[in-house]
Amino acid sequence: MLRNPLLVPDLRELIQAGEIDALGEFFADHHPVQIAELIEDLDVAEGDVLIKLLAPRVRGDVMSYLTVERQVEIVNAMPPSEAAALLHLMPHDDRADLVNHLEEEQVDAIFPHLAQAEREDIRRLASYEPGTAGGVMTTDYVTLAPHLTVRESLDRVRREAPDRETIEYSYVVDESRKLLGIVSLKRLILARPQSRITEIMQRDPILARVDDDQESVARTIDKYDLFAIPVVDATGMLVGIVTHDDAMDILRREQTEDILAFGGVTVDPEVDDIPYWQGSVYRSVRRRVNWLLLLFLAETLTGSVSRHYEWVEEASPHLHHFTPLLIGTGGNAGSQAVGTIIRGLALGEIVFSQTMSVVFREWITGTVLGLILGAVGFLHTWLLRGESPTFALVIAFTILGICMWANTVGALVPLLARKLGIDPAVVSAPLITTLVDATGLCIFYTIAILLLRIT
Amino acid sequence: MLRNPLLVPDLRELIQAGEIDALGEFFADHHPVQIAELIEDLDVAEGDVLIKLLAPRVRGDVMSYLTVERQVEIVNAMPPSEAAALLHLMPHDDRADLVNHLEEEQVDAIFPHLAQAEREDIRRLASYEPGTAGGVMTTDYVTLAPHLTVRESLDRVRREAPDRETIEYSYVVDESRKLLGIVSLKRLILARPQSRITEIMQRDPILARVDDDQESVARTIDKYDLFAIPVVDATGMLVGIVTHDDAMDILRREQTEDILAFGGVTVDPEVDDIPYWQGSVYRSVRRRVNWLLLLFLAETLTGSVSRHYEWVEEASPHLHHFTPLLIGTGGNAGSQAVGTIIRGLALGEIVFSQTMSVVFREWITGTVLGLILGAVGFLHTWLLRGESPTFALVIAFTILGICMWANTVGALVPLLARKLGIDPAVVSAPLITTLVDATGLCIFYTIAILLLRIT
Repeated sequence: MLRNPLLVPDLRELIQAGEIDALGEFFADHHPVQIAELIEDLDVAEGDVLIKLLAPRVRGDVMSYLTVERQVEIVNAMPPSEAAALLHLMPHDDRADLVNHLEEEQVDAIFPHLAQAEREDIRRLASYEPGTAGGVMTTDYVTLAPHLTVRESLDRVRREAPDRETIEYSYVVDESRKLLGIVSLKRLILARPQSRITEIMQRDPILARVDDDQESVARTIDKYDLFAIPVVDATGMLVGIVTHDDAMDILRREQTEDILAFGGVTVDPEVDDIPYWQGSVYRSVRRRVNWLLLLFLAETLTGSVSRHYEWVEEASPHLHHFTPLLIGTGGNAGSQAVGTIIRGLALGEIVFSQTMSVVFREWITGTVLGLILGAVGFLHTWLLRGESPTFALVIAFTILGICMWANTVGALVPLLARKLGIDPAVVSAPLITTLVDATGLCIFYTIAILLLRIT
Repeated sequence: MLRNPLLVPDLRELIQAGEIDALGEFFADHHPVQIAELIEDLDVAEGDVLIKLLAPRVRGDVMSYLTVERQVEIVNAMPPSEAAALLHLMPHDDRADLVNHLEEEQVDAIFPHLAQAEREDIRRLASYEPGTAGGVMTTDYVTLAPHLTVRESLDRVRREAPDRETIEYSYVVDESRKLLGIVSLKRLILARPQSRITEIMQRDPILARVDDDQESVARTIDKYDLFAIPVVDATGMLVGIVTHDDAMDILRREQTEDILAFGGVTVDPEVDDIPYWQGSVYRSVRRRVNWLLLLFLAETLTGSVSRHYEWVEEASPHLHHFTPLLIGTGGNAGSQAVGTIIRGLALGEIVFSQTMSVVFREWITGTVLGLILGAVGFLHTWLLRGESPTFALVIAFTILGICMWANTVGALVPLLARKLGIDPAVVSAPLITTLVDATGLCIFYTIAILLLRIT
């Protein structure tokens, strides 16, 4: 599916006609993100022609916005020396990611063409666990020694700026690279040129550990409105920074993943970032079939419950017409509760020590909802369905009981999941619905036996 | 619920003992976000003591991180002149929000104490529609004239920086404030001091219109990794900027709202941002009861379907034991489809012109899933439940039919919602489940009638 259906045919024509100047002009007006989108829409050979036409710095940026699969294709089609030149131009975090996706022999061919410092930088960044601060951080920043003056520091920032993605903050480190503080470009510009960095730097900045979960790091950046967060290792040594734009990507991915998971689709961190159109139907099926099968088997339990209480049905043959209504309502109430809890957990508003209060709160909410719906259910059953008041009471009490139960389960299960170290967003609406179906039927038949005096 | 249960009692003690110095020291170590959290946990009188102890610039920042309700309480407890001084210190977007929440007579009392330019700035920002770029933008930035030299520009940036939240980018405007381009502080620092701004500015920057939806603005900032986006009115005049941290807040709010909505909870933009603990049970009930009632009434339809086909039940009395399993599976498959589609729409991966392809794709996925589950259902019914092969075939075909149908409905309904201008995230898992319940039963009984030759 083309994102720029109008531009792609024009581009194809220009490429085939070899209109290099026209192509160059075309790109001068476009943001690297847009150029990357166009290249994704062309085939590999056409894309290669375009990549080569770009100015060096733009080329590195455009590469970083392509999918890593496309990056690999492009690098594989190049002689190793050209590939090395391209890696040199790319943002540090993205090139480490790319190297992680290349064949080992390809890396061995490219690395001799890189400076030793760059090789080490790539190796180090590529070695961190994906999903941690180390896995997303970059090393593309300026460091300052604490004894420098503001004038010396500004000179250093100026000298390094052309090669650095971000100079909005500089990081103050001692000889062993221990992080002492941070200093913003704004503060450097406002300070007296003779001041020392130690006098103007911000001490004890908010920071992340290299093995922190990337989602918690992104949430810290979000909470404190940071431009970037410094990342230190266990000894307090500065090893990288995570920038606000990466934090935004992480949060977007994680939060929309929550919707997939909540809908009952398995979230696979390896492929979750592939756009809807690029995944095959086979992949869609694979991501959904496990949960569907599991829930299917769980739901066969509901059939067993129904069979177990067959004698109740025989005594009161209208009961089963209300089954979908009752277990459906339980599923709906449970979905609401679990959605609320997952959001609270995602926003960090609920912590585990509050489990009992949260469950109690949802139980109360379920009780109130159950009373309202139960009253409606009573009137519906008695007046519209023409059942006896006692029968209508069975429906009403079942609705009350199921709402209380569904809200409790909907609150408890995601909180338990979190306690067990499982992502609470895996607790999907279908899972809660299925859990409430079988147990809801038990509530239904028990109340029917008691109120209708079925023996 | 206290977020800092260990600190609050200590703080209370210091406030009661009047230990001003100790309190001052305590705050020097804390980020404005943390101070704001502490103030929220104290009562109003205690909070007022703390606010007054803060350094002026910090005070404005801390205010901006408090809930707007708390801000209103603080301002209402102050003499108008002090309130004006506090407004002067706050970020421009937050103070306009605050003024929007004050009583008109309170505003009339405060405004005479503000400079005219500030009054106008507040009035203008407060006048934009909430939920648009205008409603979230700030005016706290530096503008430059195109004919200035780099040296003159840097002087101007330096002069204005102490009063500006962001100086990372400056905005180049002509005499009528028409936006000509943007220039980063990085570029200013790297350029020759004699260069003109026109020579170094970035022309045609990515921008937003003042009435653009805030979510689409936030998504643009995210997509292009912008630090801030300039906002122009219909004539191209620069009226504000939206910064990356506000974009992050918008996306977080919108995306976690999607989970609430998907769980079947009404999302009310007025209250959606109140943390889980601060809302009352009454509010929880109000947000959930409408959907529950609506779905309850829709689900009574399922009962009618069941009653309509009572004669089929009488001919084959085991059928109804399979009802929960069959409609449950349909609900689960539908939830998966709708979750996938809502995510695709939220990430901008699916546009409306693709409706038919998306629906077709989901239909195919549903068919494959239905074939797999149908096979399992056949074996389960025949071998484990001891039903006849024909009866087992009814179950298998129903599963196939329901999966195809549920996936189609799950894809079609959110796409139609978007077409009708309704937020597709309102299409909740409970809604799809309920829709599929009644229709799924029809599929079930129709197949039973055909295969079991019930007349």
